[in-house]
Order: sequence, then structure tokens, then C-alpha cells
Amino acid sequence: MSLADSRPQQRGPARGRPRSEAVERAILEGVMKLLEDGVSLAELSIERIARTAGVGKATIYRRWSGKEELFVDVMRAAEPPDPELPGTSMRDDLVVLLESMRLRGLANRSSAIMHNVHAQMKSSPKIWAAYNTSVIRPRRERGLEILRRGQRDGELRSDIDLELANDMFVGPMLVRAVLRPDMELPEGLAERIVDTALAGLRPVSPPGG
Amino acid sequence: MSLADSRPQQRGPARGRPRSEAVERAILEGVMKLLEDGVSLAELSIERIARTAGVGKATIYRRWSGKEELFVDVMRAAEPPDPELPGTSMRDDLVVLLESMRLRGLANRSSAIMHNVHAQMKSSPKIWAAYNTSVIRPRRERGLEILRRGQRDGELRSDIDLELANDMFVGPMLVRAVLRPDMELPEGLAERIVDTALAGLRPVSPPGG
Repeated sequence: MSLADSRPQQRGPARGRPRSEAVERAILEGVMKLLEDGVSLAELSIERIARTAGVGKATIYRRWSGKEELFVDVMRAAEPPDPELPGTSMRDDLVVLLESMRLRGLANRSSAIMHNVHAQMKSSPKIWAAYNTSVIRPRRERGLEILRRGQRDGELRSDIDLELANDMFVGPMLVRAVLRPDMELPEGLAERIVDTALAGLRPVSPPGG
Repeated sequence: MSLADSRPQQRGPARGRPRSEAVERAILEGVMKLLEDGVSLAELSIERIARTAGVGKATIYRRWSGKEELFVDVMRAAEPPDPELPGTSMRDDLVVLLESMRLRGLANRSSAIMHNVHAQMKSSPKIWAAYNTSVIRPRRERGLEILRRGQRDGELRSDIDLELANDMFVGPMLVRAVLRPDMELPEGLAERIVDTALAGLRPVSPPGG
């Protein structure tokens, strides 16, 4: 797995210098290499990561408070970056959001390591909580913001709970991308889900009517 | 975790005698006890299970081909049983199906062991495949059958792919029940999801119309 096209997002300015970025990347790639070599999450230590990356332990601790925080950045760097939203309509923004979930799902499927690491992460409550706080919740918040605007602009029913509406759109994609590795993730799926959720599954003319 | 109200489903008649059932339950409870004691899936062996359940290894092998098959039955026995469907309409059947997912989600949340075991299971491709074949796929098939009937009876749009329709209904529930341990699973959620998916999320009168 290469981290060539990605880097940890939302870094503060203190970490933005090129030299610092190279060190950071070496550390993240060091962790990924250890994972690829079959080292389990439980066996990963800051000491071992430092040795693999060719840096001192203090260099790692200057950037991350511990293994959990570092690990979450590794996961984030290994995934495709979050997309920019077109902002043309709620519908278009949702399609882009769901398409990015589809691409992340495909990326995870193509890597046995990512799949395995995701599973290991879920059995570590501490790492899972860190991942949830810094990756999953902001993503969810982004979806809710799109829907809030959509409701204001009359693109979304006003009588619906936003959390539920969010699940109605992202649920069908997440189920395939995360829970059903044997199901296809074809091109165009994002559009189909968004448009079907908007239109509803009931026949246009009711039965017998 | 008690297995008092559940037992492996779809057993053949050869295993149906009361004596045999008691032995079977002792074995399933033995595995659950080991898991509760913190034994990991990798450490579980048929020998250890036999010792814990007070039976011979041959008694286990007469019933299960190996650790994977046995383990899937333990998972199934620990979960609430699959519900009977009312058969009154597609909508009602879907509500019952989603309600059973909600109850399974609540059961898994209330047990740290179940949560942990689910995660471990996902990192074992062999056990995951066995669980997928004998538990997840039949459940999915059940959902598809409900939709097939619904489409035939005019309750579901006829221009929609059944697999996609299935994900539109079960996705929102599974996302909450499985992927978002911090989200509520309130009573009435099954109805709200089914009715919202049927009606669609678009406002009844289009914006500016």
C-alpha cells in the first residue's frame, strides 16, 4: 500500500514545514510496512515504529500522543482523501459524498491488510474511539450539513429527522462498502441510491388505484 | 450471556433428541464461557472446548466438522432468533425484519463479548465465510423474497433492482445496529425506516412548484 497520494488531513501549521512532512510520511509508511509484514496492532510499539522509520521515539511523540492517535492517521493516510463538494445542490453533494464512500470501499477491498486492520481496530476500544472521533464523526457531520442545507432549500422533506435522513442515504452505500464484501460496488451506484431514496420505493400509482 | 432462550436453528432430525440437545447446549455454553473468560478465537481449540463442556472430542466432531462451524452456531445461539413474518403485506414483513435487526443490534451492544467476538470473527476469513454462508446470506435471501412478493403485488416499484431495494430498506438499520454503536436504536425505528424508504425523501410539492 502506498501513501504517495495522501497525507494526514487537518494538520496544524506547526507540522506544515516540508522537512517535517517528510519525517511524518516516513513514520506513517513505517507503520504501514509493519502492518504489511503481519505485525498485529497489539504488537505495534512506538519503539518498533521508530526503528522501522529510522527516527527517534521522541520524534514520534512530538507529533502524536501515542499509538492510538498515530494509528488513526495511518488509516486516514491510506484511504482516498475526502472529496470536495460541488455545492450545486443537495442531490449533487450527496452523490459526491456517496461516491467517495464507494471509492473507499473499493480501496479497502483491494487491500487485505486494510481489511484486517479495520477488523483489528474494532476490537481495540481505544483506537476505535479515536478513529470514530477524528474520522467517522466529522464525515457524518459533513453529511448532516448537506442535508440541513437541503431542507432549508426545499430539496428534502421538512418533516424528517436529519439523522434518519442521513442514514437513509449513506446506509445503503455503507452496507455494501463495509459489511458485504461479496456485493458489487458498480459505477453509478451513488446516483442510483440518492435518486431512489429521494423518489421512494412505492409505485407511482398505488395498487388498485 | 445466557443461551437459555435460544438454540441452533435448522438442525436435522438426527440431532433432535432431548439428550442430544442437552449435550449440544453444554458444548455451545462451554464455548461461550471460554469467550467470556477472555479466550480469543485463535486460542480456542476443540480439545479445550471438550474439556470445558465435560464431553469427549469425538462428541463435538460428531456434530460439527470443526471449530469454524461450531463457532457459527455459538454466534447464532447467542443472538435473538429470526422472527416469524406476518405475511400481511410487504411493508409489514419488512417492519418485522428490520425490528429483528434492531433487537439483534441491542443484544450485541449489551454484551462486550459479542462485540469483541464479532470483530475477531471478521479477522478470520474462514469463520467469516462460514458465518456469511450459513447466517447472513439466508437472512438476505429472506429479505429479497419479501421484496419479490412486494413487486409482484404492486407494493414496490417494478423498475427497481431487488438487491438495491433490499439495501435501501436494511442499510439504514444495519448502519445503526452494526456500524454506529453510539447511535440510538429507539423503538419504532423499523417502521420509520420502512415508511420513509417507501415514501421517499423528496418534498411532496417540488421547490418553487
